[in-house]
Amino acid sequence: MRHQVCIVGAGPSGLLLGQILARAGIDAVILEARSAEHVLSRIRAGVLETGLVDQMRACGCGDRLDREGLVHHGFSMAFADRTHRIDLAGLTGGRSVVVYGQTEVTRDLMDARAEFGAATVYEAASVEIHDFDGVKPWVTYRKDGVTQVIDCDFVVGCDGFHGVSRASVPEAALTLYERIYGTAWLGLLADVPPADEELVYARHDRGFALASMRSHSRSRFYVQVPPTERVEDWSDQRFYDEFRRRLPEAVADRVVPGPSIEKSIAALRSFVAEPLRFGRLFLVGDAGHIVPPTGAKGLNLAASDVHYLATGLREFYEEQSSAGIDAYSARALARIWKAERFSWSMTAMMHLLPETGAFGARMQLAELDYIASSEVASAAIAENYVGLPY
Amino acid sequence: MRHQVCIVGAGPSGLLLGQILARAGIDAVILEARSAEHVLSRIRAGVLETGLVDQMRACGCGDRLDREGLVHHGFSMAFADRTHRIDLAGLTGGRSVVVYGQTEVTRDLMDARAEFGAATVYEAASVEIHDFDGVKPWVTYRKDGVTQVIDCDFVVGCDGFHGVSRASVPEAALTLYERIYGTAWLGLLADVPPADEELVYARHDRGFALASMRSHSRSRFYVQVPPTERVEDWSDQRFYDEFRRRLPEAVADRVVPGPSIEKSIAALRSFVAEPLRFGRLFLVGDAGHIVPPTGAKGLNLAASDVHYLATGLREFYEEQSSAGIDAYSARALARIWKAERFSWSMTAMMHLLPETGAFGARMQLAELDYIASSEVASAAIAENYVGLPY
Repeated sequence: MRHQVCIVGAGPSGLLLGQILARAGIDAVILEARSAEHVLSRIRAGVLETGLVDQMRACGCGDRLDREGLVHHGFSMAFADRTHRIDLAGLTGGRSVVVYGQTEVTRDLMDARAEFGAATVYEAASVEIHDFDGVKPWVTYRKDGVTQVIDCDFVVGCDGFHGVSRASVPEAALTLYERIYGTAWLGLLADVPPADEELVYARHDRGFALASMRSHSRSRFYVQVPPTERVEDWSDQRFYDEFRRRLPEAVADRVVPGPSIEKSIAALRSFVAEPLRFGRLFLVGDAGHIVPPTGAKGLNLAASDVHYLATGLREFYEEQSSAGIDAYSARALARIWKAERFSWSMTAMMHLLPETGAFGARMQLAELDYIASSEVASAAIAENYVGLPY
Repeated sequence: MRHQVCIVGAGPSGLLLGQILARAGIDAVILEARSAEHVLSRIRAGVLETGLVDQMRACGCGDRLDREGLVHHGFSMAFADRTHRIDLAGLTGGRSVVVYGQTEVTRDLMDARAEFGAATVYEAASVEIHDFDGVKPWVTYRKDGVTQVIDCDFVVGCDGFHGVSRASVPEAALTLYERIYGTAWLGLLADVPPADEELVYARHDRGFALASMRSHSRSRFYVQVPPTERVEDWSDQRFYDEFRRRLPEAVADRVVPGPSIEKSIAALRSFVAEPLRFGRLFLVGDAGHIVPPTGAKGLNLAASDVHYLATGLREFYEEQSSAGIDAYSARALARIWKAERFSWSMTAMMHLLPETGAFGARMQLAELDYIASSEVASAAIAENYVGLPY
């Protein structure tokens, strides 16, 4: 079988790229190792930058998002018995973010793709990427016991940190940058109203907490835990007790401790692979870089990768110019490093970390105190949170 | 002998406090362990915030500073073959800093004190502070082989990190916060014109460098070195070679490698003691806190301490109110922690540090790149550099 582009991974970045390409008349197949149901069951981020919202609209997937997404004009940072609101709109000339679950983004893109009739192969096993250092890469996979071959012009790895795409690149061709924070987030999803109208990030001496949400009736709550914790040891009751202790009293009082739909633990990590292009193979999103979740940059960063790459691929097919794909890695990485910086600094400012110590804890409080007292420092947080320009 | 206030230490903070008190009709004696010549020979900072400049003017010591000080409206940050100018004036509504050596500040204050006829005892040995937990503290010292006693209302420790004042406080009464950076600055003073019109802070893969100055004809240059280096191993030639390698080419080309007047190595440290008041003993400046030199906050922070304390002491004597001295420690510390944060973050962003690693180095570059691209991030640097409000 032949397609112009073979996308590996049907998460939101693979689907978004597929949708943009499909509408541009570029034929892309998507291979996904898991089932559609499994992809939809993964609970991930829920704060979208307007850049991603605009991309969803531009590719015809913005209707439900515009209807159901919650536009947030600010968020709060709580510390030392104080709460400082970052007025996103006021500090960035009217910009905002939209709260809308990653799962919903994925579903909307899946539906649009089905409507378009573009090919997605779910449960594609043993995906292998071949000859991407030449001009005729090809991809093999097994489905229903049969090995299939896809010939293509380009392969795009949207298959996450543990996917086959980055693993296919010779080690010597990659430079890896990594920081392991030695801590984790325990997240709980419940069909209860949010604890506050906006997100509340709390730095507390017992550890970080985040009161987030997916909708007016679905909440996502987090507490920082050691990465060695086991979900089984955290009853809902224990979770809510700890969560409320770390929040400002007024917010804690509004937490409705409803039964969890999902609970999971994710270790915090910063990771960047350079470059993001190897001949005719491109890495997009988590396949090339990971941010710790503080500041909600992961999905948004995958979306800006998709933007740069889709632009490059359209230039290639529509204008016979390889300038855009040649620039992809550098363009994407320039924005990635800035988002890595923001995610790292938000994480370092708000978490109990092994290296924090007494002086470090005071630096965290001094930084929060300074931000609370400075319009330009608050504006710097705000412009990163709504998303730096593509 | 009896004085209302006994100040320990005749460096710039002790002299500034003494001058403000003298003009307010409050009788303060200053005890200094070293000679006046020795105090004047210590080469220290040279960038004054306008807060300190205003204090100098208000106490009648601003004439020479206004005549000879160089008003700087910006400085540069060099990194990765780029240079980003922080437009202090443009980003802070017209504020600036004044380049004027600490030695000159000290000399002006010394001269003013002599003119006033206020008492300074130089080479006061074996200073001891007694009964500061009661209302009648007293201080003893030896001079010319004779032990002298000063009865006073208050004792103010302006005697630096290694002075007797903080050492007189029972350990249990102090909480200490400290960070040792594991690195140092090697400074060279020379009567050569500055390498640039403004200061240039350079982050380089070989280590930090700073091209600073004291006047149009006197320069102060620094390179980051391991704290184990010995000054004797650094010939002027070796210094200039290393210094120029770390600077942007255009700046390096303008360095005039004149003979050094002074060379010294200072380890980088962050340190804060809490509180800054113990009964009738107050700690001011380096006696209570140390910042790493990146960002030039040390002298300026001592000056804001002096401002808060002088205000409190005037309220005590003029209005019989202890509100100001009661608030001293908290007021001073609120500003100190913000300056500690700025100095720490500037240091962490621009130095090779043991913990930096490959990811950390990229975070430094990403931070500098972000600052260079963001007006509000540049403005946050600028407002800290010119000095947060008293």
